[in-house]
Amino acid sequence: MDNKRGNVWIAAAGLVINENGEWLVVKKKYSGLKGKWSLPAGFVQPGEMLDEAAVREVKEETGIDAEPVALLGLRTGVIAGEISDNMAIFLLRPLSRDIVVQTDELYAAAFLSKTALQNDPNTSGLLRYLLALEPLDSLSLHDGLNPGDPFGYTKYRLYFESSKLKE
Amino acid sequence: MDNKRGNVWIAAAGLVINENGEWLVVKKKYSGLKGKWSLPAGFVQPGEMLDEAAVREVKEETGIDAEPVALLGLRTGVIAGEISDNMAIFLLRPLSRDIVVQTDELYAAAFLSKTALQNDPNTSGLLRYLLALEPLDSLSLHDGLNPGDPFGYTKYRLYFESSKLKE
Repeated sequence: MDNKRGNVWIAAAGLVINENGEWLVVKKKYSGLKGKWSLPAGFVQPGEMLDEAAVREVKEETGIDAEPVALLGLRTGVIAGEISDNMAIFLLRPLSRDIVVQTDELYAAAFLSKTALQNDPNTSGLLRYLLALEPLDSLSLHDGLNPGDPFGYTKYRLYFESSKLKE
Repeated sequence: MDNKRGNVWIAAAGLVINENGEWLVVKKKYSGLKGKWSLPAGFVQPGEMLDEAAVREVKEETGIDAEPVALLGLRTGVIAGEISDNMAIFLLRPLSRDIVVQTDELYAAAFLSKTALQNDPNTSGLLRYLLALEPLDSLSLHDGLNPGDPFGYTKYRLYFESSKLKE
């Protein structure tokens, strides 16, 4: 366990969907997700926003360039009664097509159809849950708000959705 | 700056709306929000989920009991180029009515109408932004999923929304 991280964790995952409606998934070599199809994900680093962490993890694990579109959801939980473990899941738009698998950490990375993932016994529980919820709603990216100089923000973004905006 | 927290922060805020449509807001005595109406909020602690942190902060700051209903949104940013500062904002349902102000940290706590908050020059920028977005959509609480024993979760919740679920 990484002591730098303390007992409150925040991670980001990216769901990249290509023009054929296929989902970009990875098979990790470690952790509870070992050998299971799951979303590219990892811990947020100092100096980056949550959505930037999702974009970076997708790039590092799969070689795919992507940009944030919306917030799909949040997973929050507690591990062993003491670690607050949180993950925000972003919808990302792919900007490239060629997968380069990060073989140190992953067995595989691929764009797979929703049917293929639903029928594969090695699809992770969370991914299976998301496939059953599809089509997923989301909260839109709001960029450009200046929260005010006293806060010292050098980057700032919001994810919210309003029914009014959809009309 | 709290070193335990490192350079990746995660906080939770709660929006409690009463039966008159009034928003529960507080005026902090410190930080960039000093003297501004803002939502009860604070850092997540080890052993608690994000939504539990929102409920706890509302209780500590205002005395109001509440329960989580939905995820309204996410604020993510970077402070001074190095601190990843993140906050999830939950919609909470009030379970009590009597406000008890935490006077060590706050000048005031009150249920105020949206019009009152919009007209008050001391309403925070983020709160003003949310008031303009109203009515806000949200991602629903999904409880009861078992992610699998290998993960060691003692608590686990998801916030997602599907158009299918609304029908």
